[in-house]
Amino acid sequence: MKLSQTFIPTLREVPGDALIASHRLMFRSGMLRKLSNGLFAYLPLGLRSFRKVERIIREEMNAIGSLEIKPTVVVPGDLWKESGRWETMGEALLRVKNRLGTDFVVSPTAEEAFTALVRDELSSYRQLPLTLYQINTKYRDEIRPRYGVMRGREFVMKDAYSFHTGEDSLDETYQAMGRAYRRIFKRCGLTVIPVRADSGAMGGSGSEEFMVESGIGDNTLLLCRACDYAANVEKAACKPDWAGGEGETLSPEAARAAAASTAAVEKIDTPEVKTIEELCGFLKTGAKRFIKTLIYRAVNGELDLSSAPGNYRGEKRPSGEPGYGAAFFAVLIRGDLEVNEIKLAAALKASEVALAADSDVVRLTGAPVGFAGPVGLEGIPVIADPSVTALNDVVTGALAKDLHYTHVAYGRDFVPWLVTDIRTVKAGDRCPLCGGELYEKKGNELGHIFKLGYKYTRSMGVSYLDEAGKTRIPAMGCYGIGLDRTLASVIEEHHDEAGIIWPMTVAPYQVILIPIKYEGAVKIAADGLVSALEDRGVEVLLDDRNERPGVKFNDADLMGIPYRVVLGDKNLNLSPPMAEVKHRRDKENRLVELTRAAEELTGLVYGELGELNR
Amino acid sequence: MKLSQTFIPTLREVPGDALIASHRLMFRSGMLRKLSNGLFAYLPLGLRSFRKVERIIREEMNAIGSLEIKPTVVVPGDLWKESGRWETMGEALLRVKNRLGTDFVVSPTAEEAFTALVRDELSSYRQLPLTLYQINTKYRDEIRPRYGVMRGREFVMKDAYSFHTGEDSLDETYQAMGRAYRRIFKRCGLTVIPVRADSGAMGGSGSEEFMVESGIGDNTLLLCRACDYAANVEKAACKPDWAGGEGETLSPEAARAAAASTAAVEKIDTPEVKTIEELCGFLKTGAKRFIKTLIYRAVNGELDLSSAPGNYRGEKRPSGEPGYGAAFFAVLIRGDLEVNEIKLAAALKASEVALAADSDVVRLTGAPVGFAGPVGLEGIPVIADPSVTALNDVVTGALAKDLHYTHVAYGRDFVPWLVTDIRTVKAGDRCPLCGGELYEKKGNELGHIFKLGYKYTRSMGVSYLDEAGKTRIPAMGCYGIGLDRTLASVIEEHHDEAGIIWPMTVAPYQVILIPIKYEGAVKIAADGLVSALEDRGVEVLLDDRNERPGVKFNDADLMGIPYRVVLGDKNLNLSPPMAEVKHRRDKENRLVELTRAAEELTGLVYGELGELNR
Repeated sequence: MKLSQTFIPTLREVPGDALIASHRLMFRSGMLRKLSNGLFAYLPLGLRSFRKVERIIREEMNAIGSLEIKPTVVVPGDLWKESGRWETMGEALLRVKNRLGTDFVVSPTAEEAFTALVRDELSSYRQLPLTLYQINTKYRDEIRPRYGVMRGREFVMKDAYSFHTGEDSLDETYQAMGRAYRRIFKRCGLTVIPVRADSGAMGGSGSEEFMVESGIGDNTLLLCRACDYAANVEKAACKPDWAGGEGETLSPEAARAAAASTAAVEKIDTPEVKTIEELCGFLKTGAKRFIKTLIYRAVNGELDLSSAPGNYRGEKRPSGEPGYGAAFFAVLIRGDLEVNEIKLAAALKASEVALAADSDVVRLTGAPVGFAGPVGLEGIPVIADPSVTALNDVVTGALAKDLHYTHVAYGRDFVPWLVTDIRTVKAGDRCPLCGGELYEKKGNELGHIFKLGYKYTRSMGVSYLDEAGKTRIPAMGCYGIGLDRTLASVIEEHHDEAGIIWPMTVAPYQVILIPIKYEGAVKIAADGLVSALEDRGVEVLLDDRNERPGVKFNDADLMGIPYRVVLGDKNLNLSPPMAEVKHRRDKENRLVELTRAAEELTGLVYGELGELNR
Repeated sequence: MKLSQTFIPTLREVPGDALIASHRLMFRSGMLRKLSNGLFAYLPLGLRSFRKVERIIREEMNAIGSLEIKPTVVVPGDLWKESGRWETMGEALLRVKNRLGTDFVVSPTAEEAFTALVRDELSSYRQLPLTLYQINTKYRDEIRPRYGVMRGREFVMKDAYSFHTGEDSLDETYQAMGRAYRRIFKRCGLTVIPVRADSGAMGGSGSEEFMVESGIGDNTLLLCRACDYAANVEKAACKPDWAGGEGETLSPEAARAAAASTAAVEKIDTPEVKTIEELCGFLKTGAKRFIKTLIYRAVNGELDLSSAPGNYRGEKRPSGEPGYGAAFFAVLIRGDLEVNEIKLAAALKASEVALAADSDVVRLTGAPVGFAGPVGLEGIPVIADPSVTALNDVVTGALAKDLHYTHVAYGRDFVPWLVTDIRTVKAGDRCPLCGGELYEKKGNELGHIFKLGYKYTRSMGVSYLDEAGKTRIPAMGCYGIGLDRTLASVIEEHHDEAGIIWPMTVAPYQVILIPIKYEGAVKIAADGLVSALEDRGVEVLLDDRNERPGVKFNDADLMGIPYRVVLGDKNLNLSPPMAEVKHRRDKENRLVELTRAAEELTGLVYGELGELNR
């Protein structure tokens, strides 16, 4: 392709709103233009790289037997009402009413559409497993779109959905997807950090996020200095930092035995003392000697509360599961630790948890905020972090204004209804796998695979007949990759001051050929080399513009095409005639015989492709 | 690909709402499923053919130097306000307000987005001509979506937009597009009728529609039995059916001379007579001896009226052109003919024309509806069809209730302000090129190319500097093809009772291999043949299902894969072993030596591809 015949409007200036390298470089190299806040148009150069990312993803999806389909971008609102997400998705969902008053959604994700399609076609276990995917336009109404296509409003996503007769089959596809994702990112030249993630609003359990490190990342990751443990803070665990013997959690009986020599509970006056900090100062002791008791309100929970205090009756939830619309819980954690509300919500199978209103705290604990405690607390389920089970002589609120209990022992003075990990892990905590020190990084999510379980298939009424002719609900998995973000991340990882340095697999062109002046013998040599390279399947951009060499060199560096070949009278007049060849990441040119240049460049290009695609 | 490993849910039943063959067959063959009214999902089989149509279009666009870009599907409403189409597009435009109250449009077409992109980048004549295209999702809020993807709400369109320094350059690209479109349809195996079309709401002049004949077509076409003239009724012309001498339109002077022997105008009583039919009955003469005078109101016209009666002042229109918001015209046509309002609107450069309200007729003609006529009519521009210029002794309304004039002669008794073709052409009229008889067909539009001129570039303020450094506005062309409709039309043209008969270029697979039973020696032979074909680049679907041969044969016919190969014990046990080969359109099988089958099928497949792609 001749540069004069395509449309690559490079810029010397950096757009004012471009805060990160990929945003700056995609604009400056003429890959991208802005249509509006968060809406971008890929120009020919950008689209070439975009399509290569798309092709890599498609190849890897097809290789694991995932089948491509093409649903619409605009989907019926009714499907979202069936799944319940019409209400729960919030304002990021772009809702449209057409002229007939029918509700539509501009798809941000497609669980509903795929589930509805499969529902209509599925009859027998013989059709399963089935994995379908699309590579299609999505819209999410970001309130503050930023960083170019890294966080745009409209974007392209590959989203796959799998359907299974059971957990084993789901796990098999989930694992295959995990391997395919690793290959996709490797082929794009990306270093990703696969992390255990909470599956958030998507529901279900078993999920992995593929992150790239980024100073502007949306996610906080905890990584181990000693092993390859990596987790999103939303779900990160850590080794207990107490002497818990064999297990991490003491049973009430064991704790009671351990508390044999602890003095009996004693009520103490703590006037005007409400926070843990104030209490530490007042009692002159550390926060680790306290139990923090927080009252939470959980919404749309599906945890079975039939054995819990508080008379929660199992109502039938929209999903068909028993559950409750809203319920209150007392949550216990060691005084120096913080509750991780995402873990708490997951433990309660709730769509949302939040601290209870003051009036609810007074009603449920009989005391103002600041004096809740587990001893004598009735009528509300008590949830404890395992850290609490190692405490046998601590301070808690005494369910009355200005009063605390001391010498409180777990197992003896109170027994929680449920003990489960709800601790926020921080840098400096210990790796749950090897005990190494954890540290934090900011990351951006490029892909996410997760086991949805039965959330959508149940709420949308999907079923099939098993071998015995019995009606069953299929298990479901869901797997996404953002294409625009993946492309931008490649640039984030591969650039320097002068521009992009493309990995061969996603480079818009593989070779850029710069004639010093595109005329006479140089033109003949350039045209010949372009033909020879194109005949060998190499993608060449020929800079045939009537510009100074410096301008051409700068644009070539900016565009980041892996190999640059310069042809000029000086080297062509050598005997034999020579071409200058340079890899984008190298500083120095080297001379290659013109007659051997096509052969050698082809070898180099295919060599790098082979390396990345291996 | 093994049939058991893909997802092709064929149906024996015809969906109740499927009225045309392509709709029925796309559903029955498992190509397509419905998500909602007018919204469809392509399943794997359908997507394969869809992608082939897409690739053919992309190749032909690239071959003429058109550059692919990818703007968004959701575009800013502000751009549509700039062009004025936010108001004029009506309710088919899907408008969305996001959470911040910003207006967006789900693109039905992209003149605005492309014009805005080019506006920001264009500075010099050296950048022109420039042709950009996209193949992207569009949405049009059809009030009654029907016929499957033939008239859906969401669809994929290739739309290209070209920018030029002048009309010659625009014409060059327009012609190249016309040739590319002919190649695209030929490669898809489609018979299209290229017709001269009115460019309708798009503005500008010079356009060609590519139609396929269809009983459910939206368009009425007029075709010549003798030559290749074809036109949309909206724009069709015909040879004058009066003795007009050399030219078609007589000058007022010539007409006056011809009327020398015509008696003077005479007023006649015509009580209770209003319509042409009543008048014919009353006067006992034919409709050809009357002039019909109709009062029209035209909106947003841009015709220069400074020399016209009626004191219309040239206001500045939103486009920057002088014009008028609304104006009235008296329109004359011979009594047996009908006014073509689309031609009339084009002549007046108006966005819309409609018969004036009765009260306006009274005000402008001084008489109730039914008595308008050109003799003595003042204060309103008179527009006449050329048919009127051949009349020199006819009847017209006399601008008073129950009165008509007779012996009226054009040129002597009245002279229109403008004479222009506004006649509706019908079957039986004469071809404007050769005089042959015209006949009518219904057609569906697959593609449309047209010269937009300066409509968008002017209203959206696009400019460049010419060689002399002078600011100029570029001319623009626009070129669309609907992919879904093209694919459905291929099926309309290529099917029989049993199913689809794909042209090789757009067939989802090129060969279907049916083992009678997929086991033992047959399985080994089938797997070997699949490998041999795939090694040669042939796309094979292997029906490995455990179904009766009849079921497999029926599905193969339904899916319409060009070559069917059957392998069974009987023929494999012959010496040498044989395979049954049949083209989808043939009735009879023939036997081919198994060892030569791959070679022979490859030759047949590539032969058909070569024929279509030639």
